[in-house]
Amino acid sequence: MNRLFHVPLSPFCRKVRLVLAEKRIEVELVEERYWEQDPDFLRRNPAGKVPVLRLGDRLLADSAAICELIEELYPSPPLMPRDVDGRYEVRRLVAWFDDKFHAEVTSNLLYERVNRKVQKTGYPDSKNVKAGAKAIKWHLDYMTWLLDRRRWLAGDEMSLADFAAAAHLSSLDYISDVDWNRSAVVKDWYAKIKSRPAFRSLLVDQIPGFPQPSHYADLDF
Amino acid sequence: MNRLFHVPLSPFCRKVRLVLAEKRIEVELVEERYWEQDPDFLRRNPAGKVPVLRLGDRLLADSAAICELIEELYPSPPLMPRDVDGRYEVRRLVAWFDDKFHAEVTSNLLYERVNRKVQKTGYPDSKNVKAGAKAIKWHLDYMTWLLDRRRWLAGDEMSLADFAAAAHLSSLDYISDVDWNRSAVVKDWYAKIKSRPAFRSLLVDQIPGFPQPSHYADLDF
Repeated sequence: MNRLFHVPLSPFCRKVRLVLAEKRIEVELVEERYWEQDPDFLRRNPAGKVPVLRLGDRLLADSAAICELIEELYPSPPLMPRDVDGRYEVRRLVAWFDDKFHAEVTSNLLYERVNRKVQKTGYPDSKNVKAGAKAIKWHLDYMTWLLDRRRWLAGDEMSLADFAAAAHLSSLDYISDVDWNRSAVVKDWYAKIKSRPAFRSLLVDQIPGFPQPSHYADLDF
Repeated sequence: MNRLFHVPLSPFCRKVRLVLAEKRIEVELVEERYWEQDPDFLRRNPAGKVPVLRLGDRLLADSAAICELIEELYPSPPLMPRDVDGRYEVRRLVAWFDDKFHAEVTSNLLYERVNRKVQKTGYPDSKNVKAGAKAIKWHLDYMTWLLDRRRWLAGDEMSLADFAAAAHLSSLDYISDVDWNRSAVVKDWYAKIKSRPAFRSLLVDQIPGFPQPSHYADLDF
């Protein structure tokens, strides 16, 4: 049985969950308290991070490398364009969200508000939370700029870039940190992706100590 | 003319320089003080980071996306294996160095000692420098573990993973922060990669305020 060692609100894990579900690859989800650095877990991934995926005989780490591998092993339905420039743009945007958005928004909001409490590493730093709340506005505006020109973030077909972005935004939406009124095109884009069958598993996540807000699972939010 | 907007000691820029040189793609190097966030530069890359590559008509950002694109456009000599599992391992290790090694070592040593001075953002934080000096030992040991089992980091052929690792280590070597006596296999590996023609341009870099140490360009270090 395929098995994903994950943390429910981790955007990197959510991206992999979305890709697996979109490709209809069944997987058992196992929550992993990676910050406790359990020796068994470190044997599975010396980087000490989630997600870690057992896919058949393979034991895999790093969400970007995992998603590229899944795409190569299970090309249908495609989440990468066929042309080289299209693939470049998808990879650029996946990095945009997993690197820049992650550093400027996700770390400052989600990790301050949730991870600190769950991992017992102190209280949220209000300076960081403020910086994250400011940065997300600029990022939503950048997404608006892209979506004014394209049907999906990286082009006219849905791709891994949309799943990377939706993984971050859905985690932030769980703690009500996304202002969906800021951009109609971003809201429409999220409504489309949220209503996909692949998204269902994310919408039933429940985090102890953080009750799910009513709009989170609502397809008509 | 192809043009790379870069910073000489940036490991992400160095990785792209190595790949371009290995593929014999000529490129003009333009130093970019990205931290000044010049509007012209931000137009080229809204992420505000180097490297940015003008490759023919293409304007490209994000070092991982750039390297994958170059590999697809110029497959010879190959820097990615032909089999899917080989490619996965290369991508996992590129992420290992550009993500984990970068956060634990490069940020703590290079950015504290050099970037703070160049970008005038204060003095090195000795706590970070100490953490970086400790972390690099563990990373060199991990590389030893890999190289005891393989000719190159990701397998028996040289790949993008070796260039990613060498890019970080060469920048740290410029500030004498790599203890080459820690591991004979890592030293042998670095000697092999350092003697490649693609490496030459990195070995003549001179950073104002940071004189090049004598061992840095020495192939018999």
